[in-house]
This record gives sequence, C-alpha cells and structure tokens, in this order.
Amino acid sequence: MMQSVTLDDTQAIAIGAGILGTGGGGSTYLNRLRLENELRRQGRAVPILQADDVPDDALVCAVGGMGAPTVSNEKLQAGDEIHTAVRALENHLRQKIHAIVIGEIGGGNALGPMVAALQLGLPVVDGDGMGRAFPELQMDTFMIYGAAPAPFALADSHGNVSIFTRIGSAEQAEEFARSLTIEMGGSAALVMPVMTGAQLKATIIRDTVSLAKRIGDAVLKCRAGSIEPAETVAALCQGKVLFTGKIIDVERRTVGGFARGRLIISAFDDYQRQLEIDFQNENLIARSNGNVLCTVPDLLTLVTLEDGEPIGTESLRYGLRVAVLAMPAPKELKSPAALAVVGPRAFGYDVDFAPMPGDLL
Amino acid sequence: MMQSVTLDDTQAIAIGAGILGTGGGGSTYLNRLRLENELRRQGRAVPILQADDVPDDALVCAVGGMGAPTVSNEKLQAGDEIHTAVRALENHLRQKIHAIVIGEIGGGNALGPMVAALQLGLPVVDGDGMGRAFPELQMDTFMIYGAAPAPFALADSHGNVSIFTRIGSAEQAEEFARSLTIEMGGSAALVMPVMTGAQLKATIIRDTVSLAKRIGDAVLKCRAGSIEPAETVAALCQGKVLFTGKIIDVERRTVGGFARGRLIISAFDDYQRQLEIDFQNENLIARSNGNVLCTVPDLLTLVTLEDGEPIGTESLRYGLRVAVLAMPAPKELKSPAALAVVGPRAFGYDVDFAPMPGDLL
Repeated sequence: MMQSVTLDDTQAIAIGAGILGTGGGGSTYLNRLRLENELRRQGRAVPILQADDVPDDALVCAVGGMGAPTVSNEKLQAGDEIHTAVRALENHLRQKIHAIVIGEIGGGNALGPMVAALQLGLPVVDGDGMGRAFPELQMDTFMIYGAAPAPFALADSHGNVSIFTRIGSAEQAEEFARSLTIEMGGSAALVMPVMTGAQLKATIIRDTVSLAKRIGDAVLKCRAGSIEPAETVAALCQGKVLFTGKIIDVERRTVGGFARGRLIISAFDDYQRQLEIDFQNENLIARSNGNVLCTVPDLLTLVTLEDGEPIGTESLRYGLRVAVLAMPAPKELKSPAALAVVGPRAFGYDVDFAPMPGDLL
Repeated sequence: MMQSVTLDDTQAIAIGAGILGTGGGGSTYLNRLRLENELRRQGRAVPILQADDVPDDALVCAVGGMGAPTVSNEKLQAGDEIHTAVRALENHLRQKIHAIVIGEIGGGNALGPMVAALQLGLPVVDGDGMGRAFPELQMDTFMIYGAAPAPFALADSHGNVSIFTRIGSAEQAEEFARSLTIEMGGSAALVMPVMTGAQLKATIIRDTVSLAKRIGDAVLKCRAGSIEPAETVAALCQGKVLFTGKIIDVERRTVGGFARGRLIISAFDDYQRQLEIDFQNENLIARSNGNVLCTVPDLLTLVTLEDGEPIGTESLRYGLRVAVLAMPAPKELKSPAALAVVGPRAFGYDVDFAPMPGDLL
C-alpha cells in the first residue's frame, strides 16, 4: 500500500489514472504539471491514508473538477479552486475536514485532489468513488450507497463559491451543479459529498490510487523494454485488448457542458472490420457490426499502440494508432443499485449490462 | 408613517405596488392572496419599521422573487421559499436577521416579503432598494451604493437552497442567480444583500411601502367616485399621463429568464398617433414617431383607463384601453453611479437619460 505520493510517482499515477479514466476525468497532463509544481513548492510528499485508518466520526469530503474536458484543457485554472471550496465548506459546517477523498480516480481528477491536499495540509485517502471516471456527479459509490447530496460546494477560477445547503437528490445536484459550471465558464471545482469516516468506509472503492500507480509502473516498464503495453495493462486489470487499429472518424460536440461524440476505429489488416465507440466525456459503449462488445460500467480505454499512453476523448483524432482496452468494473459498480445509476440504460442505451468476467480490484 | 400592514391595507398596497412596478415585479394578485391568507392564518399584522429605527449593528436582508413574471404566474410556489432562504443564511452567518427589507417595491415583490416576515416573526422596513421594479438584481440602491454581493441565498419551491459565499461582483451574482433560477424552473426566492443597519440607512429609498399605500388609496377613492384614476395618480407621484389609447400590438417572448417584448398603443382619436414601449420584465423606454419620451430609471406604468388597475407586462394584450403613466424616479436612482447601472445605456439604448422634472419621493 502506498504511504505517500512524491515526484517519483507522478508520471506513473498520471498514466494509470488516464487508463482508468476511460477517456474522461480531465487532462492528466495539466494536473500532473500542477501536482509536480506543488510538490516542489512545498518540498514534501502527499500523505496517503488507508480508508480504514479514517476515524468513524471524522469528516472527509470527495473533491474533483466538474466540466467538459474539452473546456478544462483550454480554460486556465486559478489552481486553488478545490482548496477554496473545501475551506468554504469547513467554515459553513464549523468542522474541520480530516482527509481528502478522490471523487473519481480516472484522468486528471486523480491528481487535482492531491494538489488541493498539499495546499490544505491534508492526507488523501487511497481509493475513490468510481474506480474509473463517469460524466455525472451522482455516478459515484458515495451517492449510490446513500451519502447526502448536501451540503456541496462549487468554486470557479475567479474565486466565486456557492454552497448548496439543501438539495432534494443527487440527480438534482447534478443539474444545478452542471448549470452553474456552465455559467462559471465550463469548468469548476466540486466538493461533494461530505461524509463521516464510517460512511466513507462503507462506500469507497479501496486502493485505486495504488492501482493507478501499479498500472502506470507497468506501462513505464513496457516502454523501457520497447514492448507494446496494452496486453500487460489488460492482464493487470483482469481485462483484455478488445481491438487494435487506426481511428478513422471522430464526431464530437460540446453540448450541455459535456464532450459528447462517437469514434470509429478500423482494423489494420481489414478496413471493413471496425469498432465504434460512443462517449459522453467518458467512453460508454463499444459496438462492432451492431454487436455490443462492452458497456459501462465496465471500462473502455483507448491507449496509443506503441507506448500505452491513454487518450482522452478530447484528444481523439483521425489517424491515431490505438489499442482499445476493456476492463471489468469494480464490484461496487455492479450491484443492482449501482447499475441503475451507471449501467447502460442510465446512459440511454437499450441494452442490459453483460459484465466481463472478473472485477477490476 | 405606517406602523403595520393589516387586511385593510392589502388591496391598496397591491394597487400601489403594481403602479410602482412599471409592468414588472411579479403578480400582485397572487402575492396579495398569499399575504391575506397568511395574515388570517397568523391573526396578526405585519409590523412596519422605519429604516432609522434599525440599530446600526443589526443585520437585515433584502428579499424578493427572481424570475420572469410570465413564469411566476403559472409555476406554483411552495410559499415558504423566502423563509427557507433567510433561515439558511442566518444559519450560515450564525447571526439572526433583525428585519426584512423589500428588495423592490414594484409588483408582487412588495407583498411576498411581507408573507415571509410573518412566517419569520420579523418586521418589514418601510422602504426598498428600487422605488419601482427592475429586471436585474444588481439594479438596486444597496448594490449600487456598495453592499457586498455575498453571501446571498437562492431557494426554490422544492426546498433546494444555494448560498453563494464568495462572488466577484453584483453583475456576476446576477448571472449565477439567473442561470440557477432558470434551472430551478424559472422562478426562485432571492435573499440579497445582507446588510448592517448602518448600511441600510445609507442606501435605502425610504417610505415606499407608505407611498404604495397612498397611491392605492387614491386609486380606490377614484373608483368609489367613478373617476378615471390616472391623472390623480400622476399628480400624487409628481408625474404625468403620457398617453391614453388602446393596445394594438404586443410582441412578447420569454428569453434568458426574462419576459422581453414591445407593445404599441394607438390613440383613441387618431389611429396614426402611437406610443411604442419596450420591456424587459419592466417597461424600459417609450417612443413616439422615433422620439424618446421617457426612459428608465423614470417610471413607465400602464393602468387600465377606467379603474387604474396596473397592467403587468405578462398581462398585456390586444384591445386593452390604457393610460400610460410617466413618473420621475426617486433621486437615489439618478446619481451618475446609479445611472451607470439603471440608466437607458445599461439596457442597451443609445440615448442619454433626460429626467422628468421632480423626484418620486
């Protein structure tokens, strides 16, 4: 188990988080630079805490960035949005936060919370609420398994902060937060939910920071040995390489605060053999000749063929040579309660979830 | 000076507030019914407090309804939105509110705060921040003369509450609150700004509740004597009857959370003699043959010819026989600082403000 995150870990975690990000969760590149800057500036590591070491009555909060990755890559952050939002919530609650929880381990949202934790002088819990990335805020195990949607805080790069003190449901929270995020310019820091240590332990997907690091280490080892990393990563995650080929079409639009679209990959040896993937910030469903091969909540990630670099949905482009990884979701995402929120039907697809064998962790 | 508002006062205040509302501020009809219900239910009057009797260090807050009147007339309120928002702010600030301040005296927004005051057990200050109604929240004397935009609270009919704890400017507050109001269904309760008694006394437009009552009393007296009330009201408000005639065209759309549009009135004796009025929730500018006759912040109100009933912009329709009242704005709205926010240029009209002689109060 990890004890801390130092400058030696950032590259591996960024790669691993990108692979768990299934195309979303925000840029790992920008947040890795921000994390390395903050580590250098503070001259100390990010302490990593095991979920089971959080006292039952301590207060923790999940944090992350909200918005379309297409926007977050171009709109500059102030850099202290999460810090500002956490302090505002502490002030509102008149209670100190004991530790920072990563809302989604996928993409840059694995790293942004570490920057905030350094600024706040707090540890980060090893785990998260998704084991991957999802586009909407009700789609985490904390909300699925009963955390209260209020209070939650939203902060933008201009220092504006809003605390929602009463909210009817997590879905309502998503609608308000999305609308306000758009008004804030398309990206914002979200602090949600606030939980006790006992709630955290009952709902968190454990050890995903460590998993991201292991995945990244494996990729870096392959690169050092000039081995294509896809098969190695797939094996490490109980998954498989679903397809390899070249991206031949990307249809993309930023709508309602999301990066939505579809891509088509064609096999190297047979142009007619194609894989089609739909995404909403994250890759949602893979089809070939009308057959559904993989859907949420199982993980679908594109990596570059040669060096296993994960490709965010905002970076998809014609001509990229890719491997498509399919990896089983963590078991916490496969209960009936979870599938009602993160299964294919929750995203508007009229198909049942046919789980891949195994669990991510 | 008024000491209280009882069931004997509600009709007159509703008429007077409607006339000061310049077409906006929400339905006086619905809020009058709500106020009468609450007065009966509680069996006591709304205490009215003079601004100068508020202690300098006491905390007060302005309150009102936000949204397009076209929406507020059809979307049911829970009835306790303002109450909920004030209590949430008190809890956030850990301080009790001493008195309720009417954000805008115009329209139903004069009466809604009285309902909330009864629910909260608080008095209402005789005065407001506009002396009329305006479409945007930065357009009151509290914000114009330096009140802090945060914290402010927004609550909807489902009990959802958001407190904005840090906001860069009143204009930014307007954008966030408008966007969230739309997400809340098009209407919401707004509590803003929170002020000390000292700040209140430096910025409030005094005695406008009493003025609304006097205007309403005058209209009711005219009705009892079968006299058309327009000239009487105009004289009472230092204004004039700008035009009488029949509405021959109304162009209306609900856009960006506002009721926007234009109407044309034709004189009874000469169809070609016409008055054209633009509105954004409230009537903004009156023109005839390309000549500007009256603009914000001076007041433009349509009343029915026979009985002086004020006509909200949401109730304009072909065929109504109306008198158009033009009344000078209160002096607090005519400083350079105020005109920058509520003058014709602030609404996108390339004309200077040519004030009518006199002041409303």
